[in-house]
Amino acid sequence: MPVKQGTHYALLDEVQLQKIEAMTDLILKDIGVTLKGDPLSLAILELAGAIVEGENVRIGRASLMAIIQASAPKSFSWKSLESTVQLGTDETYFAPMFGAPNIRRHDNSYTQSQFSDYQTLVKHCEDSPIMASSGYLLCIAHDIPEKVRHIAMLRAHLELSTKPVMGTVLSEIALQEVAIEANATEFHPGECKLLHMINSTPPLTFQSNPLQCLRLASQLGQGCLVTSYMMMGATSPVTFFASLAQGLAEVLIGAALTQLYQPGVAVAAGLFATPFSMRKMLPAFGTMESHVAMLAGIQLIKRLGIPCRGDGLITSAKTHDSQAEFEGNNMLSASLLAGADIILHSAGWLENGRCVDIKKMEFDLQYIEGIQQKVNLDHHFLLP
Amino acid sequence: MPVKQGTHYALLDEVQLQKIEAMTDLILKDIGVTLKGDPLSLAILELAGAIVEGENVRIGRASLMAIIQASAPKSFSWKSLESTVQLGTDETYFAPMFGAPNIRRHDNSYTQSQFSDYQTLVKHCEDSPIMASSGYLLCIAHDIPEKVRHIAMLRAHLELSTKPVMGTVLSEIALQEVAIEANATEFHPGECKLLHMINSTPPLTFQSNPLQCLRLASQLGQGCLVTSYMMMGATSPVTFFASLAQGLAEVLIGAALTQLYQPGVAVAAGLFATPFSMRKMLPAFGTMESHVAMLAGIQLIKRLGIPCRGDGLITSAKTHDSQAEFEGNNMLSASLLAGADIILHSAGWLENGRCVDIKKMEFDLQYIEGIQQKVNLDHHFLLP
Repeated sequence: MPVKQGTHYALLDEVQLQKIEAMTDLILKDIGVTLKGDPLSLAILELAGAIVEGENVRIGRASLMAIIQASAPKSFSWKSLESTVQLGTDETYFAPMFGAPNIRRHDNSYTQSQFSDYQTLVKHCEDSPIMASSGYLLCIAHDIPEKVRHIAMLRAHLELSTKPVMGTVLSEIALQEVAIEANATEFHPGECKLLHMINSTPPLTFQSNPLQCLRLASQLGQGCLVTSYMMMGATSPVTFFASLAQGLAEVLIGAALTQLYQPGVAVAAGLFATPFSMRKMLPAFGTMESHVAMLAGIQLIKRLGIPCRGDGLITSAKTHDSQAEFEGNNMLSASLLAGADIILHSAGWLENGRCVDIKKMEFDLQYIEGIQQKVNLDHHFLLP
Repeated sequence: MPVKQGTHYALLDEVQLQKIEAMTDLILKDIGVTLKGDPLSLAILELAGAIVEGENVRIGRASLMAIIQASAPKSFSWKSLESTVQLGTDETYFAPMFGAPNIRRHDNSYTQSQFSDYQTLVKHCEDSPIMASSGYLLCIAHDIPEKVRHIAMLRAHLELSTKPVMGTVLSEIALQEVAIEANATEFHPGECKLLHMINSTPPLTFQSNPLQCLRLASQLGQGCLVTSYMMMGATSPVTFFASLAQGLAEVLIGAALTQLYQPGVAVAAGLFATPFSMRKMLPAFGTMESHVAMLAGIQLIKRLGIPCRGDGLITSAKTHDSQAEFEGNNMLSASLLAGADIILHSAGWLENGRCVDIKKMEFDLQYIEGIQQKVNLDHHFLLP
């Protein structure tokens, strides 16, 4: 069950939003975005009117908006055999954390995660009524050989969960193998079976692997979740509005590419910006700055007319302490309030994403269920 | 410096709000509110059209609304010699916690609080740019004799703080002594020097002491903050909408009384409802239910046309742990989002209010300052 969105919290007004978009336009036209190691992407953008020099692409915001709005679905179905999640309505859906190399288990042991942990996490997501998806790459199954790990993970989802799955972005080959295994190789307008997490590499770059995965996923008719994950002061300007302007440029290119490869294919997008600690050389998750960036980022993405991603209970804390709740709430509240369509990393996250904590996942799942009950108020109105 | 309010988060729609108000009307007309030990309050309400039987008062919601809206200021100044807080604008102001019998100090000692602790807390509030007031009764000064404690506290505020002060509600005599000491005995329309925390005693009762203090404060031209502080399942119905309907009845009576005693006198109001744990026989602060009740309560109070109180970082946690942040954020976020004019208990609170923790107060003050910077965005738009 999803959460019904209430009134969205509009941090920025129209004038402020347009100032950021104007800066994005300036960045796109004057500096451009670098697309590495995928000549087809350069060619297809040049055909669409971009100025291509080497791997640098310059194209105005208006052109990219026109490409996106010509064919990208405002709302699409993310499907498993047994269930469908309709993204881009007035509901907010939740997906679990993604990408943890380590696990903390019930017995408090902290170690590299194993395939048995992976199965446990998938089952947790399956059992939770609030999780729309069982995600993918919940943690790294270190005991499975790398060559077959992506397939083992997918099978765990297909065997243990009835919910829609994300996809792999390990490589083009892995993506294709997973798509075949999931029977997800055909394009049906307004639908997808796999949703791939494609991140740009700020500043203003797409590396070849995510770019190739973006292309192949789109060609296979599968969805992409295009995000710029910025560290302010390191991979983007130190001020968050300038960061958002940069990230929006990256996301516009990525989202437009999906539609050039396969008009009508499912695409969602997100903007994420967190301060970078120069002392620790680490991102600082869940600060007030990233709360603001999330609120504003969701407003900007909603203007593209495609579903929007938010982030959930993410934190730099190493254990489930006051820091974890303080930071996690800063992020989750922003995503909910601004009206994200899908909230990723909504449960289990610790330590800048380097650890999934099973007890915390259980707590987080219960918490989000509580939010659902909060927002679905109708049954409280059984008054005379 | 206050926090500029953004778009308010409207949890309930007009139909839902009217359902609650209709239930309030039913409660006021059919059950009534008991006003204990203050015959003048009964007489003045009878003159205003109420049906009085013993200490029970019945009067429709429309009559109370008419009394309030005829004279209660939509906005009023809360003044000290050096500064003025204008409540009821689009700014949210903060006041510290109120009423702790115990203190946890920097050295982690936990004990009954002393007057030296009181002075430390007042200085903290004075030094924090985000605190609008240094509050009152921040903790109990156990080493000062009860007879003079209220005056000793006031003097601490007058000597150590330049900010507006709340007032005492210990007794009529104490209130008058503090008002004289604070040179706060004259009525000036749209102004007050002291703001008194007057709580009803749910269900549907005002005890004699708060009632007498409400009357005397109003007669002296000083402000009241009328709140129903409900424990759902113990002192109000277990469902929060029925609780809100009950609390609104209590607050309407209290707010109307201030205007009958002194038309135009400063009054603000709040609704607070927290679940009551039957196992622990204690309120459970900061739950999702009280988050919702706060959001809806602020909406209801705003419709009275007077400034609205919210609550801040309150929790049932005994130390500054994940529970403290989880619960505190549930409350603070609701108060901010719904647009409270003044947020009480915004810093230092632990253990259902039975402890003020100095380190936590420092943390909370910094946190709220962060929120202020979040919402005051203009300086981030220094773009070309």
